[in-house]
Amino acid sequence: MAITIQEKHASGALARETRNRVLARVERRLAEFLDAEHRTWADRNPDSTQLVDCVARMVRSGGKRLRPAFCVTGYLAGGGDPEAPGIVDAAAALELLHTFALLHDDVMDDSGLRRNEPTAHVVHSAEHEVRGWRGESRRYGESVAILAGDLALTYAERLLLDCAPRTRRVWGELCTELMMGQFLDILAAARFEPDPELSTWIALFKSGRYTVYRPLAMGAALAGADHLLAPFESYGLAVGEAFQLRDDLLDAFGSPETTGKPTRHDAKQHKMTLLMSIALREEPEIKELIGDDLGGTDTDRLHEALVRTGIRDRVEAVIAEKIDLARLAAEQTSPAWSEELCRMAVEVAYRDA
Amino acid sequence: MAITIQEKHASGALARETRNRVLARVERRLAEFLDAEHRTWADRNPDSTQLVDCVARMVRSGGKRLRPAFCVTGYLAGGGDPEAPGIVDAAAALELLHTFALLHDDVMDDSGLRRNEPTAHVVHSAEHEVRGWRGESRRYGESVAILAGDLALTYAERLLLDCAPRTRRVWGELCTELMMGQFLDILAAARFEPDPELSTWIALFKSGRYTVYRPLAMGAALAGADHLLAPFESYGLAVGEAFQLRDDLLDAFGSPETTGKPTRHDAKQHKMTLLMSIALREEPEIKELIGDDLGGTDTDRLHEALVRTGIRDRVEAVIAEKIDLARLAAEQTSPAWSEELCRMAVEVAYRDA
Repeated sequence: MAITIQEKHASGALARETRNRVLARVERRLAEFLDAEHRTWADRNPDSTQLVDCVARMVRSGGKRLRPAFCVTGYLAGGGDPEAPGIVDAAAALELLHTFALLHDDVMDDSGLRRNEPTAHVVHSAEHEVRGWRGESRRYGESVAILAGDLALTYAERLLLDCAPRTRRVWGELCTELMMGQFLDILAAARFEPDPELSTWIALFKSGRYTVYRPLAMGAALAGADHLLAPFESYGLAVGEAFQLRDDLLDAFGSPETTGKPTRHDAKQHKMTLLMSIALREEPEIKELIGDDLGGTDTDRLHEALVRTGIRDRVEAVIAEKIDLARLAAEQTSPAWSEELCRMAVEVAYRDA
Repeated sequence: MAITIQEKHASGALARETRNRVLARVERRLAEFLDAEHRTWADRNPDSTQLVDCVARMVRSGGKRLRPAFCVTGYLAGGGDPEAPGIVDAAAALELLHTFALLHDDVMDDSGLRRNEPTAHVVHSAEHEVRGWRGESRRYGESVAILAGDLALTYAERLLLDCAPRTRRVWGELCTELMMGQFLDILAAARFEPDPELSTWIALFKSGRYTVYRPLAMGAALAGADHLLAPFESYGLAVGEAFQLRDDLLDAFGSPETTGKPTRHDAKQHKMTLLMSIALREEPEIKELIGDDLGGTDTDRLHEALVRTGIRDRVEAVIAEKIDLARLAAEQTSPAWSEELCRMAVEVAYRDA
């Protein structure tokens, strides 16, 4: 049955509205779960609420809620009941998993700012120092952030208590891939050899699978819609690579005011990003500029060279190609959800924060 | 029905034998799971096996397997079927949770040695340094250990895939309490105020509940034996406190050869242990010796004072009292399991490593 573009837009808007209503319930679930935890621990031992609050602060500080959005989209596209509680718990669990990942990531990267706020390990190191406590302030702050991350991961699991094994199987794979992606990321940064294959692999695991495909797949599994796994995988890998390339461009060319975190951080942290990997492979001039220590590179000169040699434009072209691939994959779902998935792909690939 | 002591011993030995057969299957499950993960990731990306191997090394390095032992004991005491697969997965998950806890704990405490082997963060920091990689060696080594811990926690969850919600509810509480106990531990060490109430609270969460009560309760939940939860809680809290006091005594008076880790580490790490908390409360001489910086204390003099003032003997007396309490609680189970639980309590409280 052929449908007009107007009909497609209208059904896409309706789909989006349904999705957003579920996402509003996800926000309430997160807030209520964390409030209940705070109350439980305040009764047991008031000091312990600091750790709950450290998790809650990160959750409340915002973020794009991409993983819940993809999870709920995958679920509804698969015909799942928008009123069922399971999808709300699964999407909330994904946001808490992301909270875990950010808390640990900020320690591993030694990032000072996240979502325009000082990061957890920085806040707690400073507290240790100001109060003149025993031991090393850095170790204390990092330990608090590590434990807050561990607690967020535990909370995520607790939200999946009533989730069926078929969905938790996807979750287990998602978590394993996340840890592996993070490990390969720090290994690549330490080695610092231009290795586009490894960089693509990391982007695939950290963004393609973790942010897009696996959340969609969790939703599909919850809805019992296995036929969507293949198109979701193609869509997820394309959008994930576009997402990562935009991340790299925002780090190199964005402003701290809009991204909410320091920019040019990747270069300072010796990160072998997808962007740098392409630049080093394609531009001898950039390879020479970097030499053998990206950490010591003049980021102004690097910035200027990325623009002048056309690397920035070439990366923009790759992003556009990926979005075309994502569109093709999305068209294998219903017209309403195809429209919405395309809109989400563009939003992710052309975001400014 | 009265039974003779001989009958009780005989049935206790039989119970132990059944338990040990299940525990042998737990070891096989751990080995097979980790081998399968190694193979899966070797195919995907050979570098990533390093992280699997980091988890596997810790699991293979031994340890007392206390949590699996208590879990299987709780299950069998509750009448669970020794041939069912669920108990093997649950006990293996507890060992992987402990692997997670040790990996993160060694980073937070900056411990160099565990089970007579260099700790993960030390091994990977050294690798970073030897290879002359980019960035800070300390941060790299600690990041690898953090991620290996995160992976171990994920593996634990994956082993609980087919576990019923009633058992996973206990698991979720156990994990939450573990993170809180760890947090209060580092907070107390940082503040370093003698606070026997807080120290007891930490011992209760880190040992009483995490090591003894919750594993027993997981086993009871799996077996559907809710009537054992109350006696298991009394038993667990008593044995847990004895366990923690022995831990503190082994750190202060044990030798690195038998414990497999550096001794007198607690004092060097400013740890407000249960032992130190009792010593500071009861002995003005020790309070004076410590002054306001335990980290700078002469550990030889502290050691000598703990013996001379009778603190060591007093702590031994508390351990004996706790074992009596554990015995009373154990008697609320069947004669065979009461015998075995008493034996385990003594083993835990009077271990030398």
